[in-house]
Amino acid sequence: MADIDSRLKELGLTLPEAAAPVANYVPYAQSGQIVHISGQISLGPDGLVTGRLGDGVSLEDGQAAARLCALNLIAQIKAACGGDLGQVKRIVKLGGFVNAHPDFYDIPKVINGASDLMVEVFGDAGRHARSAVGVAVLPLNAAVEVDAVVEIA
Amino acid sequence: MADIDSRLKELGLTLPEAAAPVANYVPYAQSGQIVHISGQISLGPDGLVTGRLGDGVSLEDGQAAARLCALNLIAQIKAACGGDLGQVKRIVKLGGFVNAHPDFYDIPKVINGASDLMVEVFGDAGRHARSAVGVAVLPLNAAVEVDAVVEIA
Amino acid sequence: MADIDSRLKELGLTLPEAAAPVANYVPYAQSGQIVHISGQISLGPDGLVTGRLGDGVSLEDGQAAARLCALNLIAQIKAACGGDLGQVKRIVKLGGFVNAHPDFYDIPKVINGASDLMVEVFGDAGRHARSAVGVAVLPLNAAVEVDAVVEIA
Ligand SMILES: [Ca+2]
Repeated sequence: MADIDSRLKELGLTLPEAAAPVANYVPYAQSGQIVHISGQISLGPDGLVTGRLGDGVSLEDGQAAARLCALNLIAQIKAACGGDLGQVKRIVKLGGFVNAHPDFYDIPKVINGASDLMVEVFGDAGRHARSAVGVAVLPLNAAVEVDAVVEIA
Repeated sequence: MADIDSRLKELGLTLPEAAAPVANYVPYAQSGQIVHISGQISLGPDGLVTGRLGDGVSLEDGQAAARLCALNLIAQIKAACGGDLGQVKRIVKLGGFVNAHPDFYDIPKVINGASDLMVEVFGDAGRHARSAVGVAVLPLNAAVEVDAVVEIA
Repeated sequence: MADIDSRLKELGLTLPEAAAPVANYVPYAQSGQIVHISGQISLGPDGLVTGRLGDGVSLEDGQAAARLCALNLIAQIKAACGGDLGQVKRIVKLGGFVNAHPDFYDIPKVINGASDLMVEVFGDAGRHARSAVGVAVLPLNAAVEVDAVVEIA
């Protein structure tokens, strides 16, 4: 696997600090070579992207929110790998949850914001299975939440 | 495991073409003997079954929609097995998502449409753990989406 | 791992009977050392805790409902371990679903009711990755549903 830190730099991406646990759960848990990453919400350098797709949040803003979720996932994956993203063998699965009005159908396009970042950063190893659904509400009114299953070396 | 293709024929079932990836995600991703299958929506030979349970879509139509999701999952599982469904050791988990009005409580009966097909096709190897929830909206206004975790030989 | 049955007793907790399968799915399915536990709803000794957070169900009642889900999960985990909870190596992942009004944002606090019980019972082995989302409706109008991925010896 190529040097992922260099790739992040080429893409102009800075990983956020991996958020510390705030309750009796942890950001990631490993079993064998599989790591489950906790659902990451659309928190960015300017704060949490909140609100509902189809009710005040545009598709473009939703996609950017999903990209933030993916960036937060990558920060947790890096922590899970002891700082070495070269240990990532495969992004196996993303579970995408969009805070969506019942009449908003473009759920896949929103979650593409997360999927695209995984492939930009990890190449073919970033191509994952996924589910994408529209939910009634997310933690702290976040616009998007994405969790992940990752295989590491 | 018995000859699954014969079993499908006995049941009068024709697998759809495994849908090609339409974005930066893939229909399935394998890690060891575990394959994660992407969420499959209720797309059938007559098009996508759309709409909301408890708001225009009947229980029977919802169950048929869930069955379509399972058929689409089996098509992807077959692709993941290189065409040989005899490689399936266990349907481990189904995640069922129903496009549901907040007053519609029969979520499990809807998802039974998918669970039943798995057991009809795979017998005891088709008995899976599952979750079943009612969501605000699904991709393209699909009535049902189901994803899966499968163990293969 | 310490004697979990003693720990349950210290905590004054009595495990419910592990609910029998009511359809073509099973309460848990194992693949290797990983067990997927089916979504457990907020069923307690006084019946099912029903209703919607932010629309008639208080945060405290929601947390108690989540705790019931976790207790039901532990009952299923015990069954999966052949009765010996000492076989649990790690609670790997909880998937938390809250029946929530679109204006109810305290989803994480609700699911903490489940997360806290896992740590009370299993100690560090109970610290898990998790996702937590607010959904439109749950089976039988349950207030909370939680599923799990567990590693056993
Ligand atoms: Ca899952």
